[in-house]
Amino acid sequence: MLKNLLLKPSMLRYCLRKFSSEKQYPKRIFSGIQPTGSIHLGNYLGAIAQWINLQNNNEDLILCIADLHSITLPHEPENLSRNIIELAATLLGCGIDPERTILFQQSNVPAHAELSWCLGCISTMARLAHLPQYKEKSASLKDIPLGLYIYPVLQAADILTYKATHVPVGEDQIQQIQLCQELARMFNNRYGQTFPIPHTLITSSEYGRIKSLRDPSKKMSKSDPDAKSRICLTDSIDDIVSKIKKAVTDCTSQVTYNPDERPGVSNLISIHSFVTKKSVGDICREVEGLNTGQYKTVVADAVVSYVKPIQESIARYINDQGYLLEILNIGKNRASEIANENLKQVHENLGLKVPLKDRKKIPFLKF
Amino acid sequence: MLKNLLLKPSMLRYCLRKFSSEKQYPKRIFSGIQPTGSIHLGNYLGAIAQWINLQNNNEDLILCIADLHSITLPHEPENLSRNIIELAATLLGCGIDPERTILFQQSNVPAHAELSWCLGCISTMARLAHLPQYKEKSASLKDIPLGLYIYPVLQAADILTYKATHVPVGEDQIQQIQLCQELARMFNNRYGQTFPIPHTLITSSEYGRIKSLRDPSKKMSKSDPDAKSRICLTDSIDDIVSKIKKAVTDCTSQVTYNPDERPGVSNLISIHSFVTKKSVGDICREVEGLNTGQYKTVVADAVVSYVKPIQESIARYINDQGYLLEILNIGKNRASEIANENLKQVHENLGLKVPLKDRKKIPFLKF
Repeated sequence: MLKNLLLKPSMLRYCLRKFSSEKQYPKRIFSGIQPTGSIHLGNYLGAIAQWINLQNNNEDLILCIADLHSITLPHEPENLSRNIIELAATLLGCGIDPERTILFQQSNVPAHAELSWCLGCISTMARLAHLPQYKEKSASLKDIPLGLYIYPVLQAADILTYKATHVPVGEDQIQQIQLCQELARMFNNRYGQTFPIPHTLITSSEYGRIKSLRDPSKKMSKSDPDAKSRICLTDSIDDIVSKIKKAVTDCTSQVTYNPDERPGVSNLISIHSFVTKKSVGDICREVEGLNTGQYKTVVADAVVSYVKPIQESIARYINDQGYLLEILNIGKNRASEIANENLKQVHENLGLKVPLKDRKKIPFLKF
Repeated sequence: MLKNLLLKPSMLRYCLRKFSSEKQYPKRIFSGIQPTGSIHLGNYLGAIAQWINLQNNNEDLILCIADLHSITLPHEPENLSRNIIELAATLLGCGIDPERTILFQQSNVPAHAELSWCLGCISTMARLAHLPQYKEKSASLKDIPLGLYIYPVLQAADILTYKATHVPVGEDQIQQIQLCQELARMFNNRYGQTFPIPHTLITSSEYGRIKSLRDPSKKMSKSDPDAKSRICLTDSIDDIVSKIKKAVTDCTSQVTYNPDERPGVSNLISIHSFVTKKSVGDICREVEGLNTGQYKTVVADAVVSYVKPIQESIARYINDQGYLLEILNIGKNRASEIANENLKQVHENLGLKVPLKDRKKIPFLKF
């Protein structure tokens, strides 16, 4: 009878959890970007510019070059290592300040893969198969790589490794963040309070929805086979001018802002507004009287003026790779310090660590 | 035309591989054991005694307490950390010499999880679903944990992290080793020669097939609900004697060795032969005239004489956990040194590392 009244350890943990108020975690923002090649204006306005805003608002920001995600599908090693360097140079050139933001390469911090294994052990097969991105990407493949199936678990580990409280995401990533939240809750429930439940940070800026220059009904994307559809930060000045001049608009020659009815010219106005920091209304008033052809020249000039100093800065980093690698090394050390501390707690809570000081005498050997 | 004659990097690697002879790797043996609770005579004779033989033959042996495998199914953290300590003490008590054999805890060496991620990226979903152990273990589960599905990839990583050339395995593990061989070949083919193709090391000793004391048609197993079916190294002397005296034999009272017709008494003779180092023939001649009941007393005495000093040695390690943890720490450092060197090469071959000295000028920025 007494035996039935005694609490099992798992039940005791459950009760302690129920009756303790939820722990508060200091605000920390985590984001990652895959080194998959040249960054275009859509990436820049949709993600990088946001990170720089957060950094300049003195947020605690951790930024990861997610190279372990880039090997989940077949890749060329030569391209990958070049893309890592290019991406680091681009982020720094765009204004990521490695003194304020922790910028590092994912594969340099073992805790990501280690925590991913631990979270994989509490994930279920059915839950992962249910994620829409997996369904979509695997549909066309004959032999589905395991990496495609388990990468949302690594994504969750990326975030939880740093006990991040906020994650800026696009709408297509919301379901992966939900998985991360579930895994954090499950881990806390089974093994004791360990992780905050991260919140998504969805900014409502229209700059996050920059459209293709060739088909303004679609987002600007690096996977579009037509290179004229996007402006890359590493494009030559001539290419930038030429791409903007060839941007698809409509038959009306006036410059007016109406994203639904006139997506092409409105997209150019959005880009123009971003690079000049002028409002859409001010721009429309300023360029009144110009036709769309003339307006494209104005936009091209503004984009070139904005992009040129960034390009020069990127080039400086590319040409001083010793310095660039040193920055990544400092980032690795700063990220590792946080990650290893958190992983230690994960291991302790899972029973993998046997710290001498906390150990009670182990009942053993009956002789 | 000329363009078609130029080799792609992937094709070039393929040709180089084809025309270079296969690299020779120094012999290295890797084995792992899960910390799942008390070690019984079946484990001892089937695995630990073999490792000690290999060690005493001066083989390069790496022995891993596979705690990351123990979290693939639900577990109690308190039990796991106790089992890790008990297993380390047991291995040392049985004769594993940490100066000659590298003995370490898997979760202390991050390279296992890191390489597991990399190998997961070249594994396919279909291949893993095909493994019989997965089919068998998942059949009865409603929610299949991801860990059950991906643990053979971690097993492959365990082996390849050390470029092990030989792996002692039971017959039930052969298909996992085949997966490891396939992954090593695939990695070498895609990313350049990196891993040896490990061989299985199947010893033909009958000691590997010690049977249950309650049902000699089955192997001695820790999952048998009847504790009387197995002798654990941590059993009290009284328990050992009592379990052997209650061992199921048959209606014939003579002591003869015939594993097919008389599995019960033959199993006792096998155990007796192992612990006394006498041949089965010698034993049968010596005990001629005894009935099976009297013979059990002889076996029990022999087992107790053999097990007692091992138990005392285990107890000494258990009671000096500072020393035990120091041994595991030394093992961690020795294992990490090899693992990190090999992982560095894996990262380089995958394109994740960008070492400054090897880098050619990167073509970039067209302006």
